[in-house]
Amino acid sequence: MRLTAFSDYALRVLMYAATAGDRLVTIEETARVYGISRAHLMKVVNILIRAGYLRGVRGRAGGFALARTPAEINLGEVVRATEPDFALVECFISADRCLVSNCCKLPAVLNEALHSFLVTLDRYTLEDIALTRRDFDMAPLPAADADK
Amino acid sequence: MRLTAFSDYALRVLMYAATAGDRLVTIEETARVYGISRAHLMKVVNILIRAGYLRGVRGRAGGFALARTPAEINLGEVVRATEPDFALVECFISADRCLVSNCCKLPAVLNEALHSFLVTLDRYTLEDIALTRRDFDMAPLPAADADK
Repeated sequence: MRLTAFSDYALRVLMYAATAGDRLVTIEETARVYGISRAHLMKVVNILIRAGYLRGVRGRAGGFALARTPAEINLGEVVRATEPDFALVECFISADRCLVSNCCKLPAVLNEALHSFLVTLDRYTLEDIALTRRDFDMAPLPAADADK
Repeated sequence: MRLTAFSDYALRVLMYAATAGDRLVTIEETARVYGISRAHLMKVVNILIRAGYLRGVRGRAGGFALARTPAEINLGEVVRATEPDFALVECFISADRCLVSNCCKLPAVLNEALHSFLVTLDRYTLEDIALTRRDFDMAPLPAADADK
C-alpha cells in the first residue's frame, strides 16, 4: 500500500517550510535537503500554493513560506488534496471487466478502512510533526527568536 | 493510495472460491470472470495455497477451493499476507537521502493511520463479502444444496 510520491513530497515540503518559519525557502534548497528532483518539487509547490497551504513570492529573492500556521494545516486535509484518487483497487477507477462490479461488497469494506485511515490523519496537524532548525541543519535564528 | 494488484486479485480469487463452495474452480474460469490474465492469477493462487487460504488439487479435473470456511478468513489478515510491504512513503523502504530520516515524526503518524486501516479490515471476514452463485452467473447448485 502506497501514497503517491506527490503526497509524500507535499508533506515534506510543508514540514520544511514549517521549520523555516517566515523565511522564504527555495525549491533548490528543499530539493537538496530531501534529495528530490527540482522538477518534481516545482509541481508540488505549485499545487500547495494553489491549495492555499503555501504562499509564493516571485523574483530573485523569492521563494515560498507557509500561508497558514502549522496548527492550521491538517494532515488528513493535505493528503485528501494531494492524492489524485483513493482507488484502493482497480475497479474503483477503471471501467473494468469484472463480472460482479455491480453487486460486489468489497468496495464498501475497503472504503470504510480508507475512512479510518484518513480520520486518523485528521487528528494531526503540521505542528504535531514539525521539526527543529537543528534537525534540518538549518542556520539558527537570531538570538531574539531563538526560542522558536 | 493503492493496494497492490496482487492483494486486489487475491481478494477476488477468495470471493469466487467462497461462492463456488466445495466445487474445485480453475484459474481459467476465475480469469474469465474477472477479466484478469491467467499468469497473474497463477501467482496469486500459488501464494494463497502456500498461505493456507486455498487448497489446490492437481491434474485434469483439478483446481482450487477454500481451505477454510469463509468465516475463518479474515480480510485484514489476507491483506497483511498479500501486500509486499506497507511502505506508505518512500523513506519507509529505500535507503533514501532525506536529511531528517532519523528524527522525522511523519512515519509514526502514517503508521498509526495504516494501523486504523488494517484494524477496520480485521472486523470483516470473507463471509461478510461473499456473493451468491447468481451474482457470478454460476450454475445453480443441485436442489438438495440450493439453500447455500
